[in-house]
Amino acid sequence: MTYPWPDEGAKLDAISTPMPVIDEDRLAANIKKAQAYLDSHGKAFRPHIKTHKIPAIARQQLQAGAIGINCQKVSEAEVFADAGFDDILITYNILGAAKLSRLKALNSRIAQLSVVADSDVTVAGLAATFGEGRPLGVLVECDTGGKRCGVQTPEAAAALAEKIVAAPGLIFKGILTYPAPGGAEKVESFLRDTMALLAAKGVDCPVRSSGGSPDFYAAHLVPSATEHRAGTYVYNDRAMLRAGHCTADDLAMHVLATVVSRPAADRAVLDCGSKALTSDLLGFNDYGLIEGHEGAKIISLSEEHAVVDLSGCASGGPRIGDVVRVVPNHTCVVSNLFDRMVFHRNGVVTRVEEVAARGTVW
Amino acid sequence: MTYPWPDEGAKLDAISTPMPVIDEDRLAANIKKAQAYLDSHGKAFRPHIKTHKIPAIARQQLQAGAIGINCQKVSEAEVFADAGFDDILITYNILGAAKLSRLKALNSRIAQLSVVADSDVTVAGLAATFGEGRPLGVLVECDTGGKRCGVQTPEAAAALAEKIVAAPGLIFKGILTYPAPGGAEKVESFLRDTMALLAAKGVDCPVRSSGGSPDFYAAHLVPSATEHRAGTYVYNDRAMLRAGHCTADDLAMHVLATVVSRPAADRAVLDCGSKALTSDLLGFNDYGLIEGHEGAKIISLSEEHAVVDLSGCASGGPRIGDVVRVVPNHTCVVSNLFDRMVFHRNGVVTRVEEVAARGTVW
Repeated sequence: MTYPWPDEGAKLDAISTPMPVIDEDRLAANIKKAQAYLDSHGKAFRPHIKTHKIPAIARQQLQAGAIGINCQKVSEAEVFADAGFDDILITYNILGAAKLSRLKALNSRIAQLSVVADSDVTVAGLAATFGEGRPLGVLVECDTGGKRCGVQTPEAAAALAEKIVAAPGLIFKGILTYPAPGGAEKVESFLRDTMALLAAKGVDCPVRSSGGSPDFYAAHLVPSATEHRAGTYVYNDRAMLRAGHCTADDLAMHVLATVVSRPAADRAVLDCGSKALTSDLLGFNDYGLIEGHEGAKIISLSEEHAVVDLSGCASGGPRIGDVVRVVPNHTCVVSNLFDRMVFHRNGVVTRVEEVAARGTVW
Repeated sequence: MTYPWPDEGAKLDAISTPMPVIDEDRLAANIKKAQAYLDSHGKAFRPHIKTHKIPAIARQQLQAGAIGINCQKVSEAEVFADAGFDDILITYNILGAAKLSRLKALNSRIAQLSVVADSDVTVAGLAATFGEGRPLGVLVECDTGGKRCGVQTPEAAAALAEKIVAAPGLIFKGILTYPAPGGAEKVESFLRDTMALLAAKGVDCPVRSSGGSPDFYAAHLVPSATEHRAGTYVYNDRAMLRAGHCTADDLAMHVLATVVSRPAADRAVLDCGSKALTSDLLGFNDYGLIEGHEGAKIISLSEEHAVVDLSGCASGGPRIGDVVRVVPNHTCVVSNLFDRMVFHRNGVVTRVEEVAARGTVW
């Protein structure tokens, strides 16, 4: 048997929990607001689809004015290419014969495909795979303080760019970073210094791509960036709320959960465990916000249980059988746990979309 | 396009990462050892399928001597009933019309189905759903210190048992607990006290079920328990290793991952992010153990990246393109992220199994 997905027009309160639901109006408003902000600053927007993994939402983002999409893996990009998307940036070092072969096949069937590289090894693999007949776009990934991937200095970025320029099957598209929160100044100086080095060598650097939802509305503080990438802004979550990047009215995703036990006066147990909320803390010390029960604290998760400490909850907490709305700490990881996503407007189901790129890890 | 699953006989080093792989011999040995231990103490074994979610492994567990299986959700039990399993215990409070209706349908098609209850609300819902013609087995869940679900005292357990006995469509099967680690003494006294109260009322209590992998080999310290439930023992993981419940040679699951970046001398980045390892810490302050690189520490995960601090790693760490084997903190949650699982013997693929109950959250 399969999950009893609701039909259009069904009420949310008839849905079997745990289940994330998306508010259509908030989703549309988040897309519109973000695009308008980047438009007003003359920056291109390339949404990251990892947050939703749903082609229909990416279409809404393009219709609002986005120039293309951002994926993290070849397998994600394949799903979106199958759905008709033809301008895709994969912000990942693609390594190994299997993935390079799939990347080459993908490049042959969409109009614009680019990847990033931060090492000679990655560039060598790409250079050996792609030819002049159907070249691949490559950006140099730069570490501007995020301490994940990326070359460490503008000099290293420029040197790697020259290797890309020298490869007949690669087109040097520009430079890219996923910055640390609050890192606008460092991003700007890294981009500017790299551009100057490249200009001195006569290398064109048309794309300067920065990203992140946490600093979305600070994108104008990086004047050298030509585009911005972001995913979480589309749904928002508790981490975005804490950082002041959205209000409670901008939260488009809630996880519906049922109270399955009230073993003690100060304890409730919900059916949204780590298989629904994930264990992502993102700096919190609890696992989500239960709307309407201020002071209730989700103190631990097992796969199918969320244990809620009600000792600080003035309402006394929800009763057994009640359905509550939980704001997850991090929306992107929740999307990856569900085969489909339920959308609604004012509590009435509008559509059920397949999370087409769920589980695309490789 | 779909994931390029390897054929039988393929070498593991040709597999596209990140990917968990299961060592057949260690899996078989873990199943055999656990069953032999419980056999030697005259206890029934009811493995929890949440760890693997794969019918073929549950069949190995039954062939070794297990009496039936343990599921956590109706949707999981449906998958295993479809695969031919006919003795299933769902250790969960089933609430709400939708799930009760599916539970009733499930009960009509398998020989032995039982659930647990820890409240009047749960018992009332079950009593209103099931009739004498096709009654449902119910155990009372007891909180013996695990602080999740369960009635708080033997008196409450006995009182709830009487309500189950009084319902024509329910059969009182016994009492059950998921204990806190090291809680054998408390479990034993809770079970014994409840049994005494029930005996005084003339209520038979044939099943006394305890559980957990962490205290698996302490099951004989609970003489009143007739059966034990456990899941993680089948694969084992880093948390089991830390607790001394297995050795490195008993670790049946590894996550294969590729080094995609070496941005700095003290930093490597792997392609096993939270979509492969999950963010489960289980008391650790890092996200897994990289075999062969002692002192390497996975300090942070994003969805597709694992950042490794190599400052304490004497080997200098793996190089870009190297494939490493990561012991995950918690195996059960890794299983839930992959559509299929790859099995091997000495690095040669033996089979690829569908993770049939993946994503069954409701």
